Amino acid sequence: MSSTMQRITLARRPSGQPVPEDFALQSAPIPSPGEGEVLIAVSHLSLDPYMRGRMDDVKSYAPSVGIGETMTGQGVGRVIASKADGFAEGDLVTGITGWASHAVLPGSELRKLPDGLQPSLALGVLGMPGFTAWVGLRKYADLKAGETLAVAAATGPVGSMVGQIAKAAGLRTIAIAGGDEKTKLATNHFGFDAAIDHRAHADARALRAALVEQAPDGVDVYWENVGGKVLEAVLPLMNVHGRIPLCGTISWYSGLDGDGTDRLPMLWRSVLVKRLRISGLIVFDHWDLFDEFLADIGPKVMAGKIAYLEDVAQGLEAAPEAFIGMLQGKNRGKQVVAI
Amino acid sequence: MSSTMQRITLARRPSGQPVPEDFALQSAPIPSPGEGEVLIAVSHLSLDPYMRGRMDDVKSYAPSVGIGETMTGQGVGRVIASKADGFAEGDLVTGITGWASHAVLPGSELRKLPDGLQPSLALGVLGMPGFTAWVGLRKYADLKAGETLAVAAATGPVGSMVGQIAKAAGLRTIAIAGGDEKTKLATNHFGFDAAIDHRAHADARALRAALVEQAPDGVDVYWENVGGKVLEAVLPLMNVHGRIPLCGTISWYSGLDGDGTDRLPMLWRSVLVKRLRISGLIVFDHWDLFDEFLADIGPKVMAGKIAYLEDVAQGLEAAPEAFIGMLQGKNRGKQVVAI
Repeated sequence: MSSTMQRITLARRPSGQPVPEDFALQSAPIPSPGEGEVLIAVSHLSLDPYMRGRMDDVKSYAPSVGIGETMTGQGVGRVIASKADGFAEGDLVTGITGWASHAVLPGSELRKLPDGLQPSLALGVLGMPGFTAWVGLRKYADLKAGETLAVAAATGPVGSMVGQIAKAAGLRTIAIAGGDEKTKLATNHFGFDAAIDHRAHADARALRAALVEQAPDGVDVYWENVGGKVLEAVLPLMNVHGRIPLCGTISWYSGLDGDGTDRLPMLWRSVLVKRLRISGLIVFDHWDLFDEFLADIGPKVMAGKIAYLEDVAQGLEAAPEAFIGMLQGKNRGKQVVAI
Repeated sequence: MSSTMQRITLARRPSGQPVPEDFALQSAPIPSPGEGEVLIAVSHLSLDPYMRGRMDDVKSYAPSVGIGETMTGQGVGRVIASKADGFAEGDLVTGITGWASHAVLPGSELRKLPDGLQPSLALGVLGMPGFTAWVGLRKYADLKAGETLAVAAATGPVGSMVGQIAKAAGLRTIAIAGGDEKTKLATNHFGFDAAIDHRAHADARALRAALVEQAPDGVDVYWENVGGKVLEAVLPLMNVHGRIPLCGTISWYSGLDGDGTDRLPMLWRSVLVKRLRISGLIVFDHWDLFDEFLADIGPKVMAGKIAYLEDVAQGLEAAPEAFIGMLQGKNRGKQVVAI
């Protein structure tokens, strides 16, 4: 085993969309685990939109990454040295390893995975994104058969699970995705009832017209991943007593469109007139339900009843470009990095 | 009894703030009740902010008032002729009489009131505004002792009831109101723990600074009556898992401020980061709980344990100016018209 590890640090804070120069690849000696700790050789790293928020120096639900610090993120890998009870060399584990080839973490912050599991699944369909969809729908969506659900970023790991769970609950499911390839994926691979290419519609009004065709009875549940144009298109189509689980606002992560219109009054009025319920969702609040999620969804994944899709970048050094591409919607499915 | 009645109609749709010329006072023969109907001599009429929305020709939860039609609204009065089972001459009743001295309504759309009740109370503390506060807190606010609640338009009939119910539930209650007289009313008459004069603070930032002093632990429940500057001031102070029952947006009823900033992304991000819950509230959805409300609050009002305040305009012809003044915050307490 090599005695040096690699990690990717935040070189500087991005202005708007991140660029490769905002990151730095560094080498360092592999650390040794202290008492109660475990050394992991990371095999797969998860890239997720929330990481963009951590690159800014603003108060949020989690601390931002400091300049020169390793980028944060969930990884999965094998234990190569353990001083923690319950963990042995060779165990497959997952935890917040950061963007790094190796990590030392307390055993208390690691989760052991079944040995036969394809490791990267623990980062996607059976990891945080899949769980986010499952717990958010359960707590905030109040799904009813015969209703209509719309979700953007619909071929991503959260959106695709949202669609499949809602479809199984008897809802009509409308995917919103960017480009022809993704809309085909949405219906053919993930089983959405309909898919709309937001890139084919120049503004919110045009996108709304396309939505009306696919959701003639209006929208009862809008799963919010993106904000921006899609939100503006969907909002007037919301039915009375509609629900909006708010999971992400990726279209606004790197600055605003800013055409001089304040859309807050329009939203506020819609919420009132339609008696909408909007619920902010952060998956970290809900870990107590994670085992129940695994027990529900795990067997369905193993039985091939849940579709998923991974986009695997090769090598830790490929992580920044893969991350930048993901924020621009270039990935196909859950973005991971094989290290 | 005179054989003519008076009513106030919508003469034209207002542009921005309504003006007297948007209304017309008209005389008409008093109609006779048909089978199942009741003729009422209206003694008091309620003026409420939601009526501003009905003057616009936009799709809403209720139809707009047509040009030449009687302005809509709740009234209370005595039955002077009845062809409906269960109603007799002299009964005190309430219903949607409109802005009129007399009204014919089906018995099924009227509610009989206890004979000893001061009639105007059925329009305020024991009517729609009081019920709105009671049912909205119960369904959407999840009040917990020790938390902090803020409400604007705090000396109005909804806000003052919100404050009193929350205070009784053990919350710290912060009133936001316009002007020195109203802030004194809020603390001295309605029992708020603190009151802030939004007119004394030029912008959202200044108002927020005043709020921070009075809500050092943040805000857990923001009862939304107004939108605008107050919303912008409160939002960053919301605590994690805060709740926002959205009952009105009066500051935006007559057009927008429009400084070129889109505040929707800021709101959306707050909802996500703080995991807020926003719930649109229209009282008409909840009439099934009205009797429970009366049973709870009625005795407390009779026993003097709930404070209320009425601003009584004299004569139907005074209704337009009283309504316009109310939208500008000139009223002191629940605005009614004695006919």
